[in-house]
Amino acid sequence: MTSSRPFNFAPGPATLPEPVLRQVAAEMLDWQGSGMSVMEMSHRGKEFGAILERAETDLRELLAVPGNFRILFMQGGGLGENAVVPLNLSRGGKIDVVVTGSWSRKSAAEGRRYADVQIAADIGKGYAIPGDWALRDDAAYVHICTNETIDGVEFHDLPLLTNGVPLVIDCSSHLLSRPIDWSRVGLAFGGAQKNIGPAGMTLVFVRDDLLGHALDICPSAFNYETVAANHSMYNTPPTFAIYVAGLVFQWVKALEYAGKRGLAAVEQRNIDKAALLYGALDASGLYENRVDSSCRSRMNVPFLLRDDKLNESFLTQAKAAGLLSLKGHKSVGGMRASIYNAMPLEGVQALVSFLKDFESRHG
Amino acid sequence: MTSSRPFNFAPGPATLPEPVLRQVAAEMLDWQGSGMSVMEMSHRGKEFGAILERAETDLRELLAVPGNFRILFMQGGGLGENAVVPLNLSRGGKIDVVVTGSWSRKSAAEGRRYADVQIAADIGKGYAIPGDWALRDDAAYVHICTNETIDGVEFHDLPLLTNGVPLVIDCSSHLLSRPIDWSRVGLAFGGAQKNIGPAGMTLVFVRDDLLGHALDICPSAFNYETVAANHSMYNTPPTFAIYVAGLVFQWVKALEYAGKRGLAAVEQRNIDKAALLYGALDASGLYENRVDSSCRSRMNVPFLLRDDKLNESFLTQAKAAGLLSLKGHKSVGGMRASIYNAMPLEGVQALVSFLKDFESRHG
Repeated sequence: MTSSRPFNFAPGPATLPEPVLRQVAAEMLDWQGSGMSVMEMSHRGKEFGAILERAETDLRELLAVPGNFRILFMQGGGLGENAVVPLNLSRGGKIDVVVTGSWSRKSAAEGRRYADVQIAADIGKGYAIPGDWALRDDAAYVHICTNETIDGVEFHDLPLLTNGVPLVIDCSSHLLSRPIDWSRVGLAFGGAQKNIGPAGMTLVFVRDDLLGHALDICPSAFNYETVAANHSMYNTPPTFAIYVAGLVFQWVKALEYAGKRGLAAVEQRNIDKAALLYGALDASGLYENRVDSSCRSRMNVPFLLRDDKLNESFLTQAKAAGLLSLKGHKSVGGMRASIYNAMPLEGVQALVSFLKDFESRHG
Repeated sequence: MTSSRPFNFAPGPATLPEPVLRQVAAEMLDWQGSGMSVMEMSHRGKEFGAILERAETDLRELLAVPGNFRILFMQGGGLGENAVVPLNLSRGGKIDVVVTGSWSRKSAAEGRRYADVQIAADIGKGYAIPGDWALRDDAAYVHICTNETIDGVEFHDLPLLTNGVPLVIDCSSHLLSRPIDWSRVGLAFGGAQKNIGPAGMTLVFVRDDLLGHALDICPSAFNYETVAANHSMYNTPPTFAIYVAGLVFQWVKALEYAGKRGLAAVEQRNIDKAALLYGALDASGLYENRVDSSCRSRMNVPFLLRDDKLNESFLTQAKAAGLLSLKGHKSVGGMRASIYNAMPLEGVQALVSFLKDFESRHG
């Protein structure tokens, strides 16, 4: 399908697959002959029940989630979940956090409300994931952020913890962009508004044995055991977000690229998109991405202009060229291109062309 | 506008104004020339900033919210908010709850995680709001649910607390259906999925002097002071829900009925719809609503068939007649017609015709 829409590099909420948006629009007044918009459906009705069940089944298949993990569709976003995880898993004990950027730092701060948080390693002002982790054998869990949206640092392999302590991964900004090695994970969570759907929903994948240990002060709406026992229907779930997410899951399942299909196709396309963009940045004299090549994110590519007086004209001209939302996070400055699943290869090609053209005129 | 859609009496998520759904569909791929769906917009961009600002301004105008109240667009729903309120307001002290049905009972249970909760009065198995309230002068606040969605009990006047203790109202299922007497309120909250928009968002109206007292264990995403200081943008708000809510606010502002306009028109239409439906129930020998006439809800009308063996055929025939989602809550049984703002008078007229017709055939 050819689109006339501009390419949107926003970090989240972020671009969604155009066929999904078209279907959402087409079904807005009448979902499959029900006479209702999905927004209007009782969550207890059979129509929404079917939507939720299919979404969960497709997601489980896409990510090959083992049977001993529960999938929860939770209200709220990543920041809220940074409190909900320790409310459910910390048991008021110890949490080890590996800080690799802004989000893991926020998680550590939030965890301190409920537990003894230790920074097991810290990237500081560096650009590579630190190697030596001071882990405690009696920690309730180890927390990492597997893709730092602001800093552009990604774990390409999950650590193997040999002391039996569960690993918690905040995978918000690369969830569904690649497979997850569940053998190394106790709990994974991700806000929806990157690769999944509208803001206001968080997906949680939790291993059965970690349920049932919530602190008494955990609100029941956020108690994993309660939500799991009720199949994400203890209270009213974010129904419309689940519906959109379900359509995105169907889109991923059907995607074909480079002879691959489904999540494998998405991953290969993400690898190719990232290689194209980093290659262009590295070959340039104007742009710079400082992240170590071992942990550059496939999803979020921050870059600086060596002459930052050019920032404003860069953004103005990019927008005029149909390339939106390239401004970097205020804490980092410069630019950031978020190239999530729904960003087509053509979008990155257009960005690379623009980068070269802008440099030839201003470099 | 004439619609061919069936009438949807779901208790929430619930029917939305058809013009709003049409606009959402029309703007799905390109909001006002931005090249983005609202679902895809960065919450920090100027486009979404304008959407949020207009929504808040319109809501403040519609409900005549005084300047010393902050309006917060929060993640999550009513059940979550039942924990968030005591996390912010209880100071770990005392809460008095007046129980008038299922939702206030849930609020009391949730509050016990954080404070000394006393049931100041309890409707029990009755059908009228109890009169004698055992209030404590040193309570942090008094909690009531001003419209019990399941039980169909509504406060038509807010209590005047003379001891200076703030009144907290859970007005989820009648928010925006009538004015609120802010002089009697310290905090009001309501889940969106009744009169406002999609599930997954809660509106909070909080008086300035009640900010700044959150417990240390309150997650920052749910700390009213933090959310207020950042104009609901401390973390990613539920952007799409805010957008739909904003369109609903515009729809309410423009509504005309019986020579009135805006919230006054909505309220008058709700009064007329409720009178029509209760009148039909009371005149019948088959149907029964037991709620005391002093506190019958304008929004949620539960009713029983005196012969409950007819329940199934009632629901089947109603659906065939284009009247959806009339099944009562499992805890109450029977039927429930939720007739929120977006339910037109014609919907209630159609229901009343069906009630009479069904009774004539089965009564």
